[in-house]
Amino acid sequence: MAELPLAPIGRIIKEAGAARVSEDAKEALAKILEDVGTEIAADAVQYAKHAGRKTVKAEDIELAA
Amino acid sequence: MAELPLAPIGRIIKEAGAARVSEDAKEALAKILEDVGTEIAADAVQYAKHAGRKTVKAEDIELAA
Repeated sequence: MAELPLAPIGRIIKEAGAARVSEDAKEALAKILEDVGTEIAADAVQYAKHAGRKTVKAEDIELAA
Repeated sequence: MAELPLAPIGRIIKEAGAARVSEDAKEALAKILEDVGTEIAADAVQYAKHAGRKTVKAEDIELAA
C-alpha cells in the first residue's frame, strides 16, 4: 500500500493536540487509514457494480462507510 | 480539514477494483478518513499525556485504533 503521504497525517495528529509526533506514529496512522479506506472502497466498488455503473461515486462511498 | 490529498485516495479506490472513480468519491473518502484519523489522533494524544509524554508515538495510535 503506502499510498498516503505522512506529512498530512502528521498535521492531523498535530491538529488533534499533539505537541510532538514521532515518525512511527505517522506511519501507524497512515497504515490504519489505508486499511479502513481499502475496506470502504471494496464495498463501494460492489455497490457501484450493483447499480450498473463502472464509476465509483460519492454515494457508493457514503453507503459503504 | 482538507489535509489528505485526493490522488492517493483515488489510487486506494482503484486498487480496490474500481474501473473509474469520480472526484466526489475521492473527496467523500478523504473526508471520512480525515474524520476517522482525527478521532484516533485525539485519543492517542490523551494516551501520550497519560503516559507523561509530549510526543505521540505509534503505541498511542495503536492503542487508540
